[in-house]
Amino acid sequence: MKKSTALDRVRVVLSHPSHPGNIGAAARAMKTMGLSRLYLVNPRRFPDPEAVTRSSGAADVLENATVCGSLEEALGGTVLAAALTSRRRDLSLPPLTLREAAPKLLAEAQDHEVAVVFGAETSGLTNAELDCCQMLLSIPANPEYASLNLAAAVQVVTYELRTATASEAPPTETGNLATLEEIEGFYGHLEEVMIAASFLDPASPKRLMHRLRRLYARTRLEREEVNILRGILKSLDPRRKS
Amino acid sequence: MKKSTALDRVRVVLSHPSHPGNIGAAARAMKTMGLSRLYLVNPRRFPDPEAVTRSSGAADVLENATVCGSLEEALGGTVLAAALTSRRRDLSLPPLTLREAAPKLLAEAQDHEVAVVFGAETSGLTNAELDCCQMLLSIPANPEYASLNLAAAVQVVTYELRTATASEAPPTETGNLATLEEIEGFYGHLEEVMIAASFLDPASPKRLMHRLRRLYARTRLEREEVNILRGILKSLDPRRKS
Repeated sequence: MKKSTALDRVRVVLSHPSHPGNIGAAARAMKTMGLSRLYLVNPRRFPDPEAVTRSSGAADVLENATVCGSLEEALGGTVLAAALTSRRRDLSLPPLTLREAAPKLLAEAQDHEVAVVFGAETSGLTNAELDCCQMLLSIPANPEYASLNLAAAVQVVTYELRTATASEAPPTETGNLATLEEIEGFYGHLEEVMIAASFLDPASPKRLMHRLRRLYARTRLEREEVNILRGILKSLDPRRKS
Repeated sequence: MKKSTALDRVRVVLSHPSHPGNIGAAARAMKTMGLSRLYLVNPRRFPDPEAVTRSSGAADVLENATVCGSLEEALGGTVLAAALTSRRRDLSLPPLTLREAAPKLLAEAQDHEVAVVFGAETSGLTNAELDCCQMLLSIPANPEYASLNLAAAVQVVTYELRTATASEAPPTETGNLATLEEIEGFYGHLEEVMIAASFLDPASPKRLMHRLRRLYARTRLEREEVNILRGILKSLDPRRKS
């Protein structure tokens, strides 16, 4: 049996891909760089013979792809998800360049599941999808024409990851990181308590939750920290006793 | 008129490309990274509508492409030509990795014309073609499946060239960071409310506050975030009304 490597713990997540040809080309790109774990969130057409054709010798990556109904599902069990973005966004985290991001992703992937998330061909990732990710990464490109093809972006990202494995970054010290589900549980709890305290208006919750998610996404919460924060919330919940 | 840069002196040379789709996708890949000078040596079909379709918004690169009858012709006027190769070859130069090669190419391109040469999709470059080049470069890839698509290879090479030009990283964006006093004010407020909620025992507060300080220290809190967090604390304070 082959020894499992950090690259085996990197998921490539394509959200809402429109063109099966791009899915196939992405699978081929992944395999050339030694990645194999493809996740598809609501692909428009999959499986599809065009995907197989464009995958060339990487049909195995397509066959083993996981089709999901939501991005949350595709990220289940990961401790770090990086979203590829080319647009400047108001409230987002400052994006890392791909070269800055690759060693960080790989350091986590020594022991944990991580993901790189690619948006739909024309529209990219929605703000709600970005909120599921803890890191933004950007591929430096021509500011006058930054329109990388989806599979080309997958190729560049996986190339950079493979190249970064060769340079072997020292592992960053991380405690026992919380999973996506645990972090989402905390956000849900926080939102609920803020509504109960009338601090958050459920009619227009978006901006506040977005700000808070951004704050905590920067910290990379540990499991014990999530437990502490939820303990605080529980003790402060105005519904507890009045 | 735009200032000419080193990337404007890098030719992308495709020798005997079979598929017009690959030519179009290569043009797109080039343009995303700010390269524009495409040379085609005996393309099987060019011009071709499929090339235009796959080029997306980079039809200008195709229109300005130079079609040549030989590799020698395509390399006329260059001082350095690097050939992409994935195969080990008996008599060849030892190949540089793309990362090693990129700064060397760019250093020459400050004042001279240079080229990167890509072979035909299935057969690669002939030995006679390799003999026209002064440098071999290879893209690190999965040894069990190193079959990069032609346009994907152009994308990775041009990405690496662009990244090598940008030794200046974009300034990291930080919002309006909170001052030490503002952050201490938040910690004090948090501690007070947790005591009021009997979550924190003032007789032994140390470890809990330490954990929370560590969590928020990682985020580099912004002023507005401190205000939000204190707003939440105020709304949840059990002393507010009972």
